[in-house]
Amino acid sequence: KIDGARLWDSLMEMAKIGPGIAGGNNRQTLTDEDSEGRHLFADWCKAAGCTMGVDTMGNMFARREGTDPDALPVYVGSHLDTQPTGGKYDGVLGVLGGLEIIRTLNDLGLKTKHPIVVTNWTNEEGTRYAPAMLASGVFAGKHTQDWAYARVDADGKTFGDELKRIGWVGDEKVGDRKMHAFFELHIEQGPILEAEGKDVGVVTHGQGLRWIECTVNGKESHTGSTPMHMRKNAGRGLALITELVHEIAMKNQPNAVGAIGHIDVYPNSRNIILGKVVFTVDMRTHILDKLEAMVAELMERAPKLCEDIGVSFEAEIVGQFNPPAFDAKCVTAIRQAAERLGLSHMDIVSGAGHDACWINDVAPTAMVMCPCVDGLSHNEAEEISPEWAAAGANVLFHAVVETAEI
Amino acid sequence: KIDGARLWDSLMEMAKIGPGIAGGNNRQTLTDEDSEGRHLFADWCKAAGCTMGVDTMGNMFARREGTDPDALPVYVGSHLDTQPTGGKYDGVLGVLGGLEIIRTLNDLGLKTKHPIVVTNWTNEEGTRYAPAMLASGVFAGKHTQDWAYARVDADGKTFGDELKRIGWVGDEKVGDRKMHAFFELHIEQGPILEAEGKDVGVVTHGQGLRWIECTVNGKESHTGSTPMHMRKNAGRGLALITELVHEIAMKNQPNAVGAIGHIDVYPNSRNIILGKVVFTVDMRTHILDKLEAMVAELMERAPKLCEDIGVSFEAEIVGQFNPPAFDAKCVTAIRQAAERLGLSHMDIVSGAGHDACWINDVAPTAMVMCPCVDGLSHNEAEEISPEWAAAGANVLFHAVVETAEI
Ligand SMILES: NC(=O)NCCC(=O)O
Ligand SMILES: NC(=O)NCCC(=O)O
Repeated sequence: KIDGARLWDSLMEMAKIGPGIAGGNNRQTLTDEDSEGRHLFADWCKAAGCTMGVDTMGNMFARREGTDPDALPVYVGSHLDTQPTGGKYDGVLGVLGGLEIIRTLNDLGLKTKHPIVVTNWTNEEGTRYAPAMLASGVFAGKHTQDWAYARVDADGKTFGDELKRIGWVGDEKVGDRKMHAFFELHIEQGPILEAEGKDVGVVTHGQGLRWIECTVNGKESHTGSTPMHMRKNAGRGLALITELVHEIAMKNQPNAVGAIGHIDVYPNSRNIILGKVVFTVDMRTHILDKLEAMVAELMERAPKLCEDIGVSFEAEIVGQFNPPAFDAKCVTAIRQAAERLGLSHMDIVSGAGHDACWINDVAPTAMVMCPCVDGLSHNEAEEISPEWAAAGANVLFHAVVETAEI
Repeated sequence: KIDGARLWDSLMEMAKIGPGIAGGNNRQTLTDEDSEGRHLFADWCKAAGCTMGVDTMGNMFARREGTDPDALPVYVGSHLDTQPTGGKYDGVLGVLGGLEIIRTLNDLGLKTKHPIVVTNWTNEEGTRYAPAMLASGVFAGKHTQDWAYARVDADGKTFGDELKRIGWVGDEKVGDRKMHAFFELHIEQGPILEAEGKDVGVVTHGQGLRWIECTVNGKESHTGSTPMHMRKNAGRGLALITELVHEIAMKNQPNAVGAIGHIDVYPNSRNIILGKVVFTVDMRTHILDKLEAMVAELMERAPKLCEDIGVSFEAEIVGQFNPPAFDAKCVTAIRQAAERLGLSHMDIVSGAGHDACWINDVAPTAMVMCPCVDGLSHNEAEEISPEWAAAGANVLFHAVVETAEI
């Protein structure tokens, strides 16, 4: 069994870097805080006897040697970056849970046949640079590195420049590593496990996602002296599409979601009719056909709604992945680990996207989830109990060690 | 008659300071560009033989002496600050039109009985610091200077600190000046004069305004893993209120308007349900009862709409003025000037707020308007013809000189 107290201490230590304003974290990708968090993780890995590799996307790989020089490593990990108002566990639990496996094996003096590599994937959250899971996506061949480097944040800074600035461009070619398997522990970020009273969730599938960046163009004009019939108010386009997205999600229940989290309005002056609004629609469900039908309905109805009020509509997909189905053998390893440990468990579909969703395409992959209070995540108030963290990490430990073979 | 070419040249010179990105201006209040524009205006006033007074709100007063030492001055002017995406004429025409009166009187070697004072009122636009017409409002006793100094911009900088930083805190106590009359020339910012083919508008009344800053609080949570029924999406509050404001304005036609131009969303991440949205509703009409009924309807229905979707609603009035009726004698002076000059004219209600609306409460006041292309303002593409500018400035000249007495 892993050391739950040590895991918790490490989580609390990491949370001191880039503290949020309400008890959570703001350690967004490629910020100084991200770099500081990486250094702390690297120091811990070194102390645990690992060697560190870093690739040209800044992905970190802490390796504990195995006994068989020809055996491919078992990978385990998640991400250390957070949302601007993120919790202390989203991603971090999966990375430090991986580290805890190494520490526990060291304590027990155990060697595995396959090496074990703990990873920290760069820019999983996708807030500063869309899309999410950017670096694991490049690793899995979904995007080119050049394209990723050219991603731009709200201040016009590119991913490539910022990765260089914080000093984490490694020398390894991204995607060159071959994996025996990949495991990821993550908090559920939803309410199901807590409601069902389960210790862990065995993730069999995930939702697919589409991020549709929409631009509504109206005409800037005076809020006071422009008669109503002469207005081209881009804000009304945003309003109608906000409700359209909600309607489409609701009529695709159960297991479909839709919302707009990102909105930039121009010129943002109290007495100017909005001339332009740029926003990103987030739509998800775990059935590919349904996902595509939801997007199609948006693409068909949004331009008409806009036309009716005299504004124009353009859309571009800026993030997407199809619903993943995880590797049967790896999923079984997770389920059996839970049983062996006497933990209550259930199969679950991941509501969020994870690095595991991309790695699943290049290696046998599975995930284990632990509950979180009120299903709340992407909120500084995100909370889990030390017991939940330990249960998830124990399942991860058993599944990884089983797969890496003693 | 004034020198239309000289007036136009000055407009074009001033427009070089704080150029916009699409042919207009971005010379927002209390920026370095605002200071530069003030210096240019001050230099021109000095060259025209005026003495400059500046009050503690940064209002500028360029004085040309009269022949009667006991006569109160006739004031004329507007504002040099612009919207973030503003045109070259909104406000500027009224200030430089006033300067052109002085220059013309100098050319003609004419003295008036009353002194003439050309003013530049600080922060008319109200974009960086709400409310609009802030400094003329303090001058007219509508707000205290302390309150005005404490206004905060989006970056948390106060009005008082920024006025000091750009070096335009004068030594005159604000509001101490007494006026014989005040005249303001402004572009219409609406489509009526152009549509009616009139050279100038004689402004008899103005619309009243309410700026209602609304805060909708929801709950930040994950866009992927939060089930639809557990969401508290503040963005939907914004959407429903956007449409409510539009509906209220439409059912109060004719002569009522409503829109939302300012929106800040938090935390603005593609995969976080919006936890908070702050936005300002702008409602206007020229009948006080109707204005109050519009606001009452908003205040009654918005909280219910929000409650129904699980988000909270708070509102605060951050800007307001009641529909002004201008001074009969000053209005007549404007109308007679237009007739004397053989210009086509019509009575008009100002759709926008103007410094004249506040000064109207402390001195006999009137306004003259010139058409603008397509009624477009608060847009960098705002345009007027040199002929329109000259016609408006000529009416201003005649009304001012008539009132100041030769
Ligand atoms: N786990 C997580 O929050 N990932 C971010 C990508 C997503 O929006 O699902
Ligand atoms: N003239 C003008 O645009 N003033 C700004 C105040 C308002 O919004 O009416």
